[in-house]
Amino acid sequence: MRERIRSVIRAVPDYPKPGIVFRDITPLLADGDAFAEAINSFVERYRNAGLTKIVGIEARGFIFGTALAYALGIGFVPLRKPGKLPAKTLQQRYSLEYGEDALEIHTDALGAHDHVLIIDDLLATGGTVLAAVDLVKQTGASLQECAFVISLDQLPGVDRLQQAAIPYYTLCRF
Amino acid sequence: MRERIRSVIRAVPDYPKPGIVFRDITPLLADGDAFAEAINSFVERYRNAGLTKIVGIEARGFIFGTALAYALGIGFVPLRKPGKLPAKTLQQRYSLEYGEDALEIHTDALGAHDHVLIIDDLLATGGTVLAAVDLVKQTGASLQECAFVISLDQLPGVDRLQQAAIPYYTLCRF
Repeated sequence: MRERIRSVIRAVPDYPKPGIVFRDITPLLADGDAFAEAINSFVERYRNAGLTKIVGIEARGFIFGTALAYALGIGFVPLRKPGKLPAKTLQQRYSLEYGEDALEIHTDALGAHDHVLIIDDLLATGGTVLAAVDLVKQTGASLQECAFVISLDQLPGVDRLQQAAIPYYTLCRF
Repeated sequence: MRERIRSVIRAVPDYPKPGIVFRDITPLLADGDAFAEAINSFVERYRNAGLTKIVGIEARGFIFGTALAYALGIGFVPLRKPGKLPAKTLQQRYSLEYGEDALEIHTDALGAHDHVLIIDDLLATGGTVLAAVDLVKQTGASLQECAFVISLDQLPGVDRLQQAAIPYYTLCRF
């Protein structure tokens, strides 16, 4: 299961720094059949979940999130880096290995009537997706779960989501 | 025609600076019917064009490009800001109002057998999309045309594309 998808995720050694094996999704995107299989796997899982919006994290969450929103016939809400959204925003800061970063959402993007899926390409340390969950909760929307194409199971993200009792789903584990 | 799509593009005055009216696509994305109409307009235009890949420009070009690639059943190639693509890349620099920026593509992302559409959300000064066209040409791929959701017809992009004999298509003109 998912072997077709897994087989077109490329391992790039020593990127972004020595000793790290980067999981590159660009060959998956370039393969129309594999990309459709990834999106259709999500469609199958969420077709009857009552979702009103897909929430995607900049930038690679846009890639899977918008195709999924289109396939489900629902809207898409982008979570962006600071300064990219033009109207009034909520902001959530989070820690990186060195320093910190933040995500923003338009204040009017979601409300209590919304039931959403948060999607990103990769679950690694979990910092970004936990900030995304906080932002979604601040809007009053309810969360179905978080979805990823890849999870790196030796990194802390998997445990951090479990400890926070945030359900998640992943297509390929490495 | 396209009035539904046009009606959900929000005008944000004085962003990113005083005197500029920013055209905000986030309400279009949030409206599942309008977003599907935008993607389906592109599908109708390109269904029989023999495209092998959709090429999307970071980050908002990912939003429309991946949904379109999925709808057409073909692959997607991202053009990214420097340092974001993990494998070997080609780079093209371009001028901004102040300073310069660059786009990159993986060297193995496209070849002479590819026929592509370049997509972005917005045509303004045209600098980014002209760099994207140069990158695609360097790979040996052929270009169908460039597609945008919005063109700002008082800015130089429209004329620059016409002078360079690069065909383009846009859903909404402002």
